[in-house]
Amino acid sequence: MACGSIELTVDGAIATVVLSHPGKFNAMSRAMWRRLRELFLELPARADLRCVVVRGEGAQFCAGGDIAEYPAFRFQPDRLRAFHEYEVWGALGALLDCDLPLVAAIAGHCMGAGVEIASCCDIRVAAADARFGAPIARLGFPMAPREAQLVARALGEATARELLLEAAVLDAAEMQARGFLQRVLPDAAAMHAHALERARRIAALAPQAARLNKQTFRALNGPSALAGQAPAAIENIVHWAYDYADSAEHREGIDAFLAKRPARF
Amino acid sequence: MACGSIELTVDGAIATVVLSHPGKFNAMSRAMWRRLRELFLELPARADLRCVVVRGEGAQFCAGGDIAEYPAFRFQPDRLRAFHEYEVWGALGALLDCDLPLVAAIAGHCMGAGVEIASCCDIRVAAADARFGAPIARLGFPMAPREAQLVARALGEATARELLLEAAVLDAAEMQARGFLQRVLPDAAAMHAHALERARRIAALAPQAARLNKQTFRALNGPSALAGQAPAAIENIVHWAYDYADSAEHREGIDAFLAKRPARF
Amino acid sequence: MACGSIELTVDGAIATVVLSHPGKFNAMSRAMWRRLRELFLELPARADLRCVVVRGEGAQFCAGGDIAEYPAFRFQPDRLRAFHEYEVWGALGALLDCDLPLVAAIAGHCMGAGVEIASCCDIRVAAADARFGAPIARLGFPMAPREAQLVARALGEATARELLLEAAVLDAAEMQARGFLQRVLPDAAAMHAHALERARRIAALAPQAARLNKQTFRALNGPSALAGQAPAAIENIVHWAYDYADSAEHREGIDAFLAKRPARF
Repeated sequence: MACGSIELTVDGAIATVVLSHPGKFNAMSRAMWRRLRELFLELPARADLRCVVVRGEGAQFCAGGDIAEYPAFRFQPDRLRAFHEYEVWGALGALLDCDLPLVAAIAGHCMGAGVEIASCCDIRVAAADARFGAPIARLGFPMAPREAQLVARALGEATARELLLEAAVLDAAEMQARGFLQRVLPDAAAMHAHALERARRIAALAPQAARLNKQTFRALNGPSALAGQAPAAIENIVHWAYDYADSAEHREGIDAFLAKRPARF
Repeated sequence: MACGSIELTVDGAIATVVLSHPGKFNAMSRAMWRRLRELFLELPARADLRCVVVRGEGAQFCAGGDIAEYPAFRFQPDRLRAFHEYEVWGALGALLDCDLPLVAAIAGHCMGAGVEIASCCDIRVAAADARFGAPIARLGFPMAPREAQLVARALGEATARELLLEAAVLDAAEMQARGFLQRVLPDAAAMHAHALERARRIAALAPQAARLNKQTFRALNGPSALAGQAPAAIENIVHWAYDYADSAEHREGIDAFLAKRPARF
Repeated sequence: MACGSIELTVDGAIATVVLSHPGKFNAMSRAMWRRLRELFLELPARADLRCVVVRGEGAQFCAGGDIAEYPAFRFQPDRLRAFHEYEVWGALGALLDCDLPLVAAIAGHCMGAGVEIASCCDIRVAAADARFGAPIARLGFPMAPREAQLVARALGEATARELLLEAAVLDAAEMQARGFLQRVLPDAAAMHAHALERARRIAALAPQAARLNKQTFRALNGPSALAGQAPAAIENIVHWAYDYADSAEHREGIDAFLAKRPARF
């Protein structure tokens, strides 16, 4: 439990996947990314399921990555690359490759990894208190290429640039106006009830049609899969994308955060 | 008249194309798709025209496909493929290839085929009572690949997923907020007057410039044409996209609709 | 001064680039396009800078191109091509290739070239009085292909078609609703203060992360560079895109504008 978990509950045709990291607003640890991947490789094979709700434990979605783990691996280019290309993208790619409809039910913090996980879902609803951002420029690092492409598609490129270049944090009403959210509900309880109602509506519809629609969208968007199977543009970026690992700026951002002092860039 | 018609009227430089299928909310029959294609292959050659308004008969746009015709051909993969690739896309591709500016004037039902036809237009205005959706998951089938690409571009992928995976139906205000509609007017009469005013404004501008702008956007979007000329992603999907034709789910969806009973998926 | 200028001021880590053409609402002359390109080839090399604000002189952004110059070169295909491909795109490509975050601060007229320059920026804020359009159909010519691709990405294709095919002019509130503007402020003074506040926020964040994020987005969007380095779709269009130079329609549009009479298309 110390490094978080991914919980699965199933009720009829509806699975609920819960990001859980108590005391850390459900921040994603490396163990959680790996477990999320495993789970989403298993779920599509279950013939009893027709829809998956993705949420966080309690009234939070996910506050981002687990920064306490970062000093152990982020400052070496090869390990940084492996983290983003295999652990993070391993999980996100498995969500994108899942043919079951995914509903993101978002309350509280939805930051960084949280925005990325929500971006893999087909339907997104949020509580009015939800806050969205990817303020990693405060931590001294850029978004990894596949993750940037994912969020630029889901948020629109203008919003993705605002979140990354300004470390802007936007509220649920704003994110609905920008087309990221289908619906905003007054509080977490109403939002979770609404998400479940949507999941039930989906579960009553033709399951093969849903699967085929998701396969069509995926094929139209081009490969979403792991390193070695992505389009040339991505492969070219990946060559230089992790060279910043050992830079002073990157170290300063993470050191300052962990020392709870302002970073000096 | 029994299987619907496409009517053309011309007033000065403005053509009006009317989808007409009385008693069926202007649902598109196969004959209507073929006639729509013929018409849009002829219109661009007429030097007297500068703008085309696309509307439905009465205070309806188009409720989708004519489901009564479906049992005769949808359950055989080759015939299903021919329907979508040649009849439906034949017409939609002709609309996309038309260099005259197209204004969609939408009232009442705008479902399935209606959304697809509107998605081919440059400008879209609607009456407040217009309702938008593509609830074919209730009929047990997915959207064909070229059609899915078309509506995902026009609606945004998030809205396209919501319409297809949830069978959601959205009103005109929501569709304006999501960027699909340029303007919503209080009722069908005001909307048709407004659409005509836009057409007149377009007709007073430089016609060659309009044609070149439309050619530029088309070239930037890549080929929109018939099977054999589309990008690789589409061609790959088309190989498997119609394998569902003979499935129990597909038969059940259409049988249940025609028997006016709930489908059991 | 007679043909306008581009002014640069630097305050700490923030550069301000001012489009200035007094008496012409800062319309871009050919000299201004060339100077804008030079400036944006120099700025990224300055290690003291972290953010650039792009604005117009006074309470105007930019009213478009300087039409008074057009008769001298627009009616010959080769010279027209050179203008758009090297002078205009030379500058716009340099803005797109600049790895420093760019904030567009928009008041008053933002037309044609103004919309294109704003479309190259990462963040866009406007005063409530700002007006947006690209009414070149009144002048008898279409948008050049690279410029059309740029604005279609930034505005959304539906809005780009509305601005070009209808010569529509939209206000700031509408452009915010359509996702082009991050924020609208009551007047030019408040807007400029707000833009500077955003620039200061950006300047306090990790500069290398900003640069890498911008490089990633650029790589994902494909080549933005000058003729000969662009994707095949663009290169194909460029073959025919300037054939209209010597047409009667093009001459009539520009002649009528300069003679202050309505054009007869």
